[in-house]
Order: sequence, then structure tokens, then C-alpha cells
Amino acid sequence: MALVVQKYGGTSVGSLERMERVAERAIAASRAGDQVVMIVSAMAGETNRLLGLASQVTPLPDARELDVLASTGEQVSAALVALTVQKLGHPARSLLGSQIRIRTDGAFTKARILEIEGTKLLDTVANGKIAVVAGFQGVDDAGDINTLGRGGSDTTAVAIAAAIRADVCEIYTDVDGVYTTDPNICRKARKIDRISYEEMLELASLGAKVLQIRSVEVAMKYGVPIHVRSSFSDRPGTIVAGEEGLEKVVVTGIAYDKSEGKVQLINVPDKPGVVATVFGMLADQNVSVDMIIQSPSREGGHTTDVTFTVPKQDLARTKESIERCAREIGGAAIEYDMDIVKVSIVGLGMRSHAGVASRMFRILAEEGINIQAISTSEIKVSCVIASKYTELAVRALHTGFGLDRDDLELE
Amino acid sequence: MALVVQKYGGTSVGSLERMERVAERAIAASRAGDQVVMIVSAMAGETNRLLGLASQVTPLPDARELDVLASTGEQVSAALVALTVQKLGHPARSLLGSQIRIRTDGAFTKARILEIEGTKLLDTVANGKIAVVAGFQGVDDAGDINTLGRGGSDTTAVAIAAAIRADVCEIYTDVDGVYTTDPNICRKARKIDRISYEEMLELASLGAKVLQIRSVEVAMKYGVPIHVRSSFSDRPGTIVAGEEGLEKVVVTGIAYDKSEGKVQLINVPDKPGVVATVFGMLADQNVSVDMIIQSPSREGGHTTDVTFTVPKQDLARTKESIERCAREIGGAAIEYDMDIVKVSIVGLGMRSHAGVASRMFRILAEEGINIQAISTSEIKVSCVIASKYTELAVRALHTGFGLDRDDLELE
Repeated sequence: MALVVQKYGGTSVGSLERMERVAERAIAASRAGDQVVMIVSAMAGETNRLLGLASQVTPLPDARELDVLASTGEQVSAALVALTVQKLGHPARSLLGSQIRIRTDGAFTKARILEIEGTKLLDTVANGKIAVVAGFQGVDDAGDINTLGRGGSDTTAVAIAAAIRADVCEIYTDVDGVYTTDPNICRKARKIDRISYEEMLELASLGAKVLQIRSVEVAMKYGVPIHVRSSFSDRPGTIVAGEEGLEKVVVTGIAYDKSEGKVQLINVPDKPGVVATVFGMLADQNVSVDMIIQSPSREGGHTTDVTFTVPKQDLARTKESIERCAREIGGAAIEYDMDIVKVSIVGLGMRSHAGVASRMFRILAEEGINIQAISTSEIKVSCVIASKYTELAVRALHTGFGLDRDDLELE
Repeated sequence: MALVVQKYGGTSVGSLERMERVAERAIAASRAGDQVVMIVSAMAGETNRLLGLASQVTPLPDARELDVLASTGEQVSAALVALTVQKLGHPARSLLGSQIRIRTDGAFTKARILEIEGTKLLDTVANGKIAVVAGFQGVDDAGDINTLGRGGSDTTAVAIAAAIRADVCEIYTDVDGVYTTDPNICRKARKIDRISYEEMLELASLGAKVLQIRSVEVAMKYGVPIHVRSSFSDRPGTIVAGEEGLEKVVVTGIAYDKSEGKVQLINVPDKPGVVATVFGMLADQNVSVDMIIQSPSREGGHTTDVTFTVPKQDLARTKESIERCAREIGGAAIEYDMDIVKVSIVGLGMRSHAGVASRMFRILAEEGINIQAISTSEIKVSCVIASKYTELAVRALHTGFGLDRDDLELE
């Protein structure tokens, strides 16, 4: 007998018919002897409908009221799924964030879970009922509803699994697992059977589509195994877990990220404190700078060029500050390039294999792709290249690191 | 400076535009120096939509889950109205039943309020904010959401007004007050300026359309003055309050009720305990019998005829029991008549005026209307007549007791 948390996303509970399918799945697990906790998202489209109403009222709605509004989406799903389970002949009961005391930190629309009291949940499943928990929500110490931000139901599920020491947290979605890269741009992409938390975090730009990154952080912290799988089939998906037992491939996946833009400060005086001024200003404005490269100025002399990447969405609001800052430190010019992509190879195997980065550079060079910036971590190498090369680079790296599906070669 | 509770029904908050109007009204009161607590219903149609989803899932949905589902309607309204007030430049904050601790008795879908902790609400308005409370809901001691039944937001409003000792509880609706009778069948019906709680309760069949009866009971118990008025105009409506200062008219209003059917047990043996058997059985089945008349049998001898009225909706499920019961006590026959109406005159003035009942009978007789049954209370006389006479009887009584509008006589 296992204690299982099953999380169903908005598509999986997108209609009453689909709710019936997820209810059947939960009941099957329960009849097979498991204790089942379901976590449900709002029905597909419902959160957008609710937030749309708010933005019709006012362009800058109060975050506290947004949370009161948006949390109803999951509440409706929880009640309807509980009713569906009951109709199919199995006892069930819905539970809201406030009822199982999902304590959050009070940061409206992007709260973090501080604590979950598992007792009520464990009592519910111990009594043979399927517990249906409204995802995405908690309550802060002032008694106000907090939501966890987009995709927050994944985090609810993993945090609950940690709190009740569940054997596994199954995340049901509309794809059948995590892929070696985006199957939309590389048809040789392969489903990964097992991946470590660390790799999953680095593969954020792939994983974010199927799994909220914060949920992986929580899973890693508490050692909760996640099983990412399709709610439309019974095939096993991808297990996200600790390192033990992982196949030791050098590279696990190829990620790409088009959300960043590149900023170059040209001919900046090469003296102490100058760079600190720029990045201090950006930090003050809450902009997270990703890659930073400092290089001797192309024009020589005692100047350098400073290149960095920042999220495009942050750039608009900080452009003016960057330019003022550049003038103050005596920089000659600023260049922006929004047409870039960051392509990354990720794999625990890199730790013990030398030459992985240089192999990546060679593969890109063979395709005639110029590398504009590089950053590395223990299990990741990222290169900034022109965004027009995205598909070419991803496919070349996917093949070059031996990730292609075998079955396709027969075609 | 007054402490004012304003309750807005589903029509008054039926769209974002209408929410803007109610927000303006609340802000105007606040700017005039009042402390304002708004109670809001679900947007018109929303409760039906939600309950419709539940009944699509299963014909007999679990009451607990229905309450989880239905309570989201008021939650959405509260958040949107709070956002609307904020947009118009006034601080506001939504509050759910659980947040202001509206403690209920655990009877899902038809709970009663046990207690309200007014502190949080009073703190909110003391800080200059408009409090926007989700009506219709409370939380029981198990932490489950309870709803108060259809129209429950009226009761929420009055109970809150009682808990915080508000100066008045304004119930905004789509009509401009309580009328002397149904304006749809008597165009001479007049808006009542002031009416007592007792009369309002007796006028249930008129009042229920604008005011939930339970809310009047609560108002009477705690002496909360209710002001029933239109959310579409600034004209004063009807004050429902204690007796003091009421104009001493004999009859305040004419009510009619078509919801009951008449049952006649004919030729029942006239001996002790026989009638008790019938009504004991009905009580066991939770059927509330309204009027009971026992009369010597038309056919003479030691038998009587027993006539009583019961809600038509209860009759269907009890018909069989009534018939079995009648056979057991040796009754000769049963007759049903569903085409009846109960017409009532209501007024505190009856206490001190003799002959009111006989005046009613004379007015009906002059119209050639046969009275099938009569019941009286201290401030009410009801007659059962054939339902085809409804309009005729109501108009004749309205004129006969001097309730007609003066202005119409000029037409």
C-alpha cells in the first residue's frame, strides 16, 4: 500500500468528461490499495477568465483581491472532482488550502508555502476517502488567501507530498514526460525515463512547460520523487528523483531560452568599481542579470566592453536607468540585441567527463554558428547565439551528444 | 456618522457596470461620513451556473461539496466589488465568511448562523476602508463551508448588522420596496413606507420576493432596522422596524399564496385520536400542515370531514401515506384540490380593531367568492378560495381596506 499524491493540471480537469477520467484513475489507485490525495488546478481557461474580469475592472488590480478571485478556480475544480469521484461510487471530500492549513508567507499572487499541517489530510485518506485538494492556494497568518503564482498547483502537490511523506508525487499533464529537448523543434527528441532534480532545474526551459520549477526545488529539498506523466495514457512518464540509479549519460537534455536580451556597454573605462555600479543599479531595480562577460575593448586602450543578458520583460523598464548609468561611468555606447537565444546542454555526467564544453563549441562551430557568450555551471554549459540558429543548434547538439531516438532511424 | 450595512443582490452586482454603480453608492455613503459594510450576492445567474455543473455531474450531489462550489459565486463578487471600489479611489477589502468567522451550524445548503465575530469587520471600517463581505456563507466548527440557502445573503447582512450593532441594514434590490400587494395583479398597489417585523413576516409571500424571511426573524430578534430599497434609484424604500412610530392602519397589506393544495378526508369516524393519527403521520414525514378545519360530515352521523392544506411540493411524496392512513382510520374518501389560493390580510391594527375578519368575509361575499377555509392569527386573517378568483379577491380587498394609491384615481 502506497501513499500517493496525484496532481492534475487545468487541461486534465478541463471539462466534466475529463474530470471523470481523472476520477477513474484515482479510484483505480485507491481500489488497488493506495491512499490517494488528488491536487487539482482550475479548469483550463478559468484562471484567465477570472483575471480577465479583474483587469476589465482596473488595469492594476490589488494583489490581495486578485488572490481572492483567482483561488475560486481551484475551489470549483476541487468540489466538482470530489462530486465526480462520489458519483463513480467512491467516497471523496474536497479540501481547500485554508482547511489543510497550507500556511503561506503573505506575498499575494506569488506566495511561498511555509508549512502544511498534514493531519487532516492523513485522517481523510486513512478513512478510505480520496482527498481532493484545491491547488495553487494557501492562507497567510493574517487569514488572507494567497496564491502561489502560475503553475503553483505543482508546488502545492510536491509540498503536500513532502508534508505527508507520500511515496510519490505524480504530476499528470498533457504530455507524457520530460523530453531531451523540445519535440516541436527536434523530432528526434526522446522521453527521459529518469532525471535528477539538479538536471531538471537546469532544464528549466524544457521543464517549465510540464513542471513548475519551484516544485522541483521543494522536491529536491525534501527528497520527494516526482513522476511526470500523461493523464491521457497509462504509460510511465519521467521520474524526477535523487541521483542514485540514474543512467550515467554525459548530457541529459538540450534546453533553449529566448526570453533574454543582450546588452553591451562599449568602451567602458577599465577601472575598479565601474562594473559594480551598473550591476548594483540593476539589482536595486530587481532585475536578475544572467550572463556577464567582460572583455578588453575592441578599440583597445584602457577600456573594456561589458556584455550581459537580462530578461526581455525587465529590459523595457530598465533601459533608461542603464543608459543614465552608462553615461555616468563614461561609457561610449550601448548596443542591444533582442534576437538571441541561450542554448544549454545539461547533464550530471559532465562532472566526471572532461571536454564536454569544447565538444559543444565544436558542434556549433561545425554548423557555422558564432558563439556570442558562454556561461557554465557544474552540470550545464550555455551559449548565447543568434536566435535564427535555434533549431539548427538544438538539433546538432541533440545528435552530437547521442540523444536521438533510435526508432526514428528506421524510418 | 452612522455604521451602515448595505446588501446588494445578484441583479445589483450582475455585471461589472452594475458593480460600478453599487461601488459609487457605497463610496458616497462613506464620503458622507458613514462607515460602510457591503454584503454581496453572487452575480445574477452564477449560482445557477455552478449548481448546474454539479447536477450535470450527478443528480444527487453531496451537500458538502455543493456548498464548496456555490460559495465561490459570492467570493468572486466580493473580490470584484472590492476592486471596483478601489478603482474609484476608495480603499476597500473583501472578506469571506471564514475570515470574519460567520459561525454556522453545519447544515449544508441551509445552514443557520450561530455567531459572528464583528471585530475584524469593525477594524476594517474603522480604518476607513469599505468592507465587502461575501454573503450566503459561513463556516462550521469542522472548518467546512456552509451556505445559508437561497436568499441567504439577506440573512448574512442582517446578522452582521446585529453583530456590529449597525444603525441600519439596507437591502438593495431591483424593486423599490415592499408593496401593499403584488403590483403585477393590482396596479393600485402602493409602496409601504414603514412596516413592522411581525407584519413583514406575515406578508411572507410578498416579502419573500424582496427579502428572505429568515432575515426578518433575525432583524426582529435583534432589533435591526431594515431598509428595503432599489439599487437603481435614490428614493427611500420601505423601513422594516419595530412597532413604534408606525402609522396605525388596520390592514397593511394583502398577500396571496398559491403554493398549497387542499386535502379533504371525508366521513372520518368522529372519535378521539383519529385526527392525531393523520397529522402525526404528516409530522413524521416532515410536512408542515398549514390550515386545519374539522366539520361535521355533510352526510351526518358520527363522522366528520377533515380539511387541511399542505405545500403542493410535499403532497406528491406523501399522497400514498395519507391514503393508507385514511384507510386505517376508516375514512370513506379523500378529495384533493390543487386549484386553491390562500388570500390574507395582514396588519398590526387588527389587534385593536374589531370586525376586521367579518369585513374581509363580506368583501369576498360581495364579489360572489366562496370561502373554503379560514385561519386567523393576531395580526392576520387568511381565507382559502378557488384560485381563479385570486386577482379579483386581492383587488377587492385592496380597495375595501383603503390601500389603493391616491394618484391613480386621477387617471
